[in-house]
Amino acid sequence: MIIALKHGTPKDRIGSFKAFLESQGVKVHLSEGASQTVLGLVGDTSGIDEDSLMAYQLVEKVIRVQEPYKRANRMFHPEDSRIDVDTGCGESRRIGAGYLGIIAGPCSVETREQIVAVAKAVKEAGAGFLRGGAFKPRTSPYSFQGLGCKGLDLLLEAKRETGLPIVTELMSIQQLEVFDGVDIIQVGARNMQNFTLLKELGRCKKPILLKRGLASTITELLMAAEYIMSGGNERIILCERGIRTFDSYTRNTLDLSAIPALKRYTHLPVIVDPSHATGIAWMVPAMAKAAIAAGADGLIIEVHNNPEKALCDGEQSITPDAFVVLMDVLKKYAEFEKKLVS
Amino acid sequence: MIIALKHGTPKDRIGSFKAFLESQGVKVHLSEGASQTVLGLVGDTSGIDEDSLMAYQLVEKVIRVQEPYKRANRMFHPEDSRIDVDTGCGESRRIGAGYLGIIAGPCSVETREQIVAVAKAVKEAGAGFLRGGAFKPRTSPYSFQGLGCKGLDLLLEAKRETGLPIVTELMSIQQLEVFDGVDIIQVGARNMQNFTLLKELGRCKKPILLKRGLASTITELLMAAEYIMSGGNERIILCERGIRTFDSYTRNTLDLSAIPALKRYTHLPVIVDPSHATGIAWMVPAMAKAAIAAGADGLIIEVHNNPEKALCDGEQSITPDAFVVLMDVLKKYAEFEKKLVS
Amino acid sequence: MIIALKHGTPKDRIGSFKAFLESQGVKVHLSEGASQTVLGLVGDTSGIDEDSLMAYQLVEKVIRVQEPYKRANRMFHPEDSRIDVDTGCGESRRIGAGYLGIIAGPCSVETREQIVAVAKAVKEAGAGFLRGGAFKPRTSPYSFQGLGCKGLDLLLEAKRETGLPIVTELMSIQQLEVFDGVDIIQVGARNMQNFTLLKELGRCKKPILLKRGLASTITELLMAAEYIMSGGNERIILCERGIRTFDSYTRNTLDLSAIPALKRYTHLPVIVDPSHATGIAWMVPAMAKAAIAAGADGLIIEVHNNPEKALCDGEQSITPDAFVVLMDVLKKYAEFEKKLVS
Amino acid sequence: MIIALKHGTPKDRIGSFKAFLESQGVKVHLSEGASQTVLGLVGDTSGIDEDSLMAYQLVEKVIRVQEPYKRANRMFHPEDSRIDVDTGCGESRRIGAGYLGIIAGPCSVETREQIVAVAKAVKEAGAGFLRGGAFKPRTSPYSFQGLGCKGLDLLLEAKRETGLPIVTELMSIQQLEVFDGVDIIQVGARNMQNFTLLKELGRCKKPILLKRGLASTITELLMAAEYIMSGGNERIILCERGIRTFDSYTRNTLDLSAIPALKRYTHLPVIVDPSHATGIAWMVPAMAKAAIAAGADGLIIEVHNNPEKALCDGEQSITPDAFVVLMDVLKKYAEFEKKLVS
Repeated sequence: MIIALKHGTPKDRIGSFKAFLESQGVKVHLSEGASQTVLGLVGDTSGIDEDSLMAYQLVEKVIRVQEPYKRANRMFHPEDSRIDVDTGCGESRRIGAGYLGIIAGPCSVETREQIVAVAKAVKEAGAGFLRGGAFKPRTSPYSFQGLGCKGLDLLLEAKRETGLPIVTELMSIQQLEVFDGVDIIQVGARNMQNFTLLKELGRCKKPILLKRGLASTITELLMAAEYIMSGGNERIILCERGIRTFDSYTRNTLDLSAIPALKRYTHLPVIVDPSHATGIAWMVPAMAKAAIAAGADGLIIEVHNNPEKALCDGEQSITPDAFVVLMDVLKKYAEFEKKLVS
Repeated sequence: MIIALKHGTPKDRIGSFKAFLESQGVKVHLSEGASQTVLGLVGDTSGIDEDSLMAYQLVEKVIRVQEPYKRANRMFHPEDSRIDVDTGCGESRRIGAGYLGIIAGPCSVETREQIVAVAKAVKEAGAGFLRGGAFKPRTSPYSFQGLGCKGLDLLLEAKRETGLPIVTELMSIQQLEVFDGVDIIQVGARNMQNFTLLKELGRCKKPILLKRGLASTITELLMAAEYIMSGGNERIILCERGIRTFDSYTRNTLDLSAIPALKRYTHLPVIVDPSHATGIAWMVPAMAKAAIAAGADGLIIEVHNNPEKALCDGEQSITPDAFVVLMDVLKKYAEFEKKLVS
Repeated sequence: MIIALKHGTPKDRIGSFKAFLESQGVKVHLSEGASQTVLGLVGDTSGIDEDSLMAYQLVEKVIRVQEPYKRANRMFHPEDSRIDVDTGCGESRRIGAGYLGIIAGPCSVETREQIVAVAKAVKEAGAGFLRGGAFKPRTSPYSFQGLGCKGLDLLLEAKRETGLPIVTELMSIQQLEVFDGVDIIQVGARNMQNFTLLKELGRCKKPILLKRGLASTITELLMAAEYIMSGGNERIILCERGIRTFDSYTRNTLDLSAIPALKRYTHLPVIVDPSHATGIAWMVPAMAKAAIAAGADGLIIEVHNNPEKALCDGEQSITPDAFVVLMDVLKKYAEFEKKLVS
Repeated sequence: MIIALKHGTPKDRIGSFKAFLESQGVKVHLSEGASQTVLGLVGDTSGIDEDSLMAYQLVEKVIRVQEPYKRANRMFHPEDSRIDVDTGCGESRRIGAGYLGIIAGPCSVETREQIVAVAKAVKEAGAGFLRGGAFKPRTSPYSFQGLGCKGLDLLLEAKRETGLPIVTELMSIQQLEVFDGVDIIQVGARNMQNFTLLKELGRCKKPILLKRGLASTITELLMAAEYIMSGGNERIILCERGIRTFDSYTRNTLDLSAIPALKRYTHLPVIVDPSHATGIAWMVPAMAKAAIAAGADGLIIEVHNNPEKALCDGEQSITPDAFVVLMDVLKKYAEFEKKLVS
């Protein structure tokens, strides 16, 4: 961390500020230029808050040279992380480090028939994981809120019938007790900075699929991962799912350059959700291909056997038939990028 | 709600779609034009999701004429709501409907001396409520997370010493049991769409200070209020605290036009947080005045007796002395706008 | 400017980089810390491009301590600038340095009757300047493009009848020859970075009303002013008119914190356009008051004698009657802020 | 276009409003529902401004069913457009309708040696067009502004030596007379809504590379194309080059979902500029691949033989060697997507 001081700051004030910084556990290197005095902080600066430093009247600017995350930082963990999920039938599904995880399924679990049929169809087409919402975060209290525990039971049935590990969203820590059979716990975009929830998930043993918030920076996403990791759970999959911008021809703006950026800053796998990002079924294939080309470690795609009758988000779901066609293309892209579909 | 259908849709598909809509409890008025068939939905459309309708292949566009919130809607509650808080000494502090609530205090509670001194100072200057964070949502797990329950105790002490009702943030529903002495519960911007939390707060009896999310629309803020209200708790104060935009000379962009907009759409009081919005102490006075001029029902302002030593957000706190000067100006603005400072 | 170098950069590369920087006309102070080597640049760094420095492989981060604008910079011109416009009848209208300039009139000049009637009405109500568009920038080539030269003639007639100086938009430098009678030349938001135009206006003698671009930062706005000023024309009025954000309940988001920010960084006057920012007539009064409270040096407000029949932007125009009521309020606000309405 | 009227509007006001609309050259179909009266407009509504309609007090909401552009609209021109450029040696370079145009070269033309060397290198690697800036739009008046006419001469020399058609930016219409030898005229992002310039280019015979503005919607980009097309020049190539959002880890946010969106709404070719969008050389390959996967008709990539010494934007340029490697990959992607590299 580098701190530029205001021109004309008296020597004694600089001295006491330097002493204060050193009391925070870092070494401070003072450099006095003709017109600018600069302090260089050496050591672990992750506990020092840039914003708080700005309150000091002698401070002109603060630059963080080192990123504020440690466990998520590729600098301290150069190899790609891989998340393995046991299917219970002697097989493992994998995401990251050369494995392309394909997660597919409906936005909401609606009926036994629906979820089992979709699960079979996506497995047949080559997906490795089944997604489905039981607890649904909805903007309106009057919209369908998901089947809750009943939905979880149906997901487990679909898992038994197909062997697909299941991915579903957890909305509050109290639900954790009923998530026993769930293979990957999803944290939704709106909960990405629910810090209480993140801390609790740090004590849990299951992989976490952490979705980027609608207005979260790359650094904030990594700090949210750091919250979970600092609690002891390092099995995290990051998910880009669109950010909020001024344009509204798609529901959100899919930020695919987040993939190369994240892959450079962190060792964690990065997947993409083209369905929620665009909110438009006919855009999903183009953006799914682009995500793989940009280096994604996986995709999460909404598939519904009857999009028109979906209880939520039908406009962004593709049919099982369209998913079969798409998977054929995606397999070729994966091969080209030297990734194994999992 | 008005639904424009695609040109050339066969009559029988229109008929079955109309029947489906009617099964949702609304009346449907069909209007066939030369080139455009339009359906007008009459009745309570708050449970009908525009996005889901877009999944239907015959649908071209959907417009919601009526807003999707009911209890928060001024249309059904034309008078301004007023939130009264009993000080315990026979007095009432008020926000809304002609009362301008001034909430002031430090970002975080740090020590007994700090919070009591600030409480006395802001009361003396004319504030009606004391704010202070005990549980702090911080971007980094390595930053100071607040004093927790110990911080709540210190707030209660400051309340006993000054009679000021206290406002503090709740980060998860488990904390509710220790919030007994708290007068107004704050829901932070990052939790504005923590729907589980909102539902639980609907069952609580205390007023809720609901902060707008960093990337939340006006409608989403009102839908978050509706979540709480639909649970039975109608004592909600909305708070504009800056949104995220492309510019970063201030921490966030304070959206003051949200005030006249919200005042038109809802009967709930609307206050402004110039400290978090700008993140810069010297901007607070200008934006506080502007907020009152734009029609705000109150302000929440960070005041710290030693901003340089604040454990968080010192760069945006003003000193008690500066607050005294500011209050003198704000009182005149309040008078102009025919509001009583409370 | 401070440049942090990458850890482990060989000494000779640092030496040649330092020599290269010195060849750009600045002094370079080298400071070698235990883990970080930092270069401090002293002198005029306004010609050095931060982005270009980032191409050097040895560069880790670059921070600009000094702002890149000089003539617009308050540091080199501490006093407020004031723009005086001679009315031709021995009077002067003023904006800045304690004078609050009120510019009012229709979006487009439509007929002689319209513009003269509006001019008389706004003058009567207390406005100091008449605005009206002759050349109109419209999103669609099929929309009304303004009356052009004919519109300018009508504006001049209204000026003769009322003595109000006129403000109108110039869309390309070729129009300059017909702008003889115009008192203040407006550069629209979409032309804020039309650098060819800015350079030409630097050679012109008339005051320029420079509107902030929809997605322009505060620094970019000041650099646009610097383009004009570096050509020799220092009579610039800056105008905040709303920025583009994710929310669309108003046409743009009026960024009132730009006022205190600009007033701190520059000596140039800053006015606000609440009509274009919000695009909604009923919001104009609230935002006009807030702008004065936030420190604005003036306002530009759309007034139309028949908003429903306006050929453009009628939805944001207020009537002359509403303007009279508004001016009464604004005069009180101006008095309170110790500004003279001009 | 559909207009929903306010509840309770008197019949005679509806009648006169209907008559007014019909006087604009459209047919109006009136549909009176129990609680909502709706007007459906049939015919050419491209000249009717939604915003102006909102000024009418009886209007509740306006929805445009048909897009406001005509010549750019795929509905009236279902086949993909292809832009052909004659190389002068009996060959044609093509963009669109199955042809993938690769434009490469430095941000600025600097010296004869530089531009000829880069031209040869990119041609050798497989690029079909040479780019290079002679007139440069720079944020600061103190930054290098390009070599101007001298730069154009050097570009023409590079064209003579390699046969590559040249693409360069025009900043104002006065420059047109020196653009004789230029093959494709680029309109920069900051000039996308310089309507005077767009109109003039409508009278020109050369293909126009129209870059999307930093804060321009998809519809605004198409309306800018419509400005040129309505003047008679239909040879337009659209270019996505990143939009401005809240995140700043890349210079702009590359919006790749704009590609499938544009390809659906318009017949014009769409290319992508990964260099300016990200501003980071190491991100260019990932985003270039993703652009082709998303359906782009071409790419414009910055290549500089010595990025560290580039007079502008060096940090985003790749070396000729890196470009050779990248082209090998892109050719395979093009083959996948059944496009011919041109």
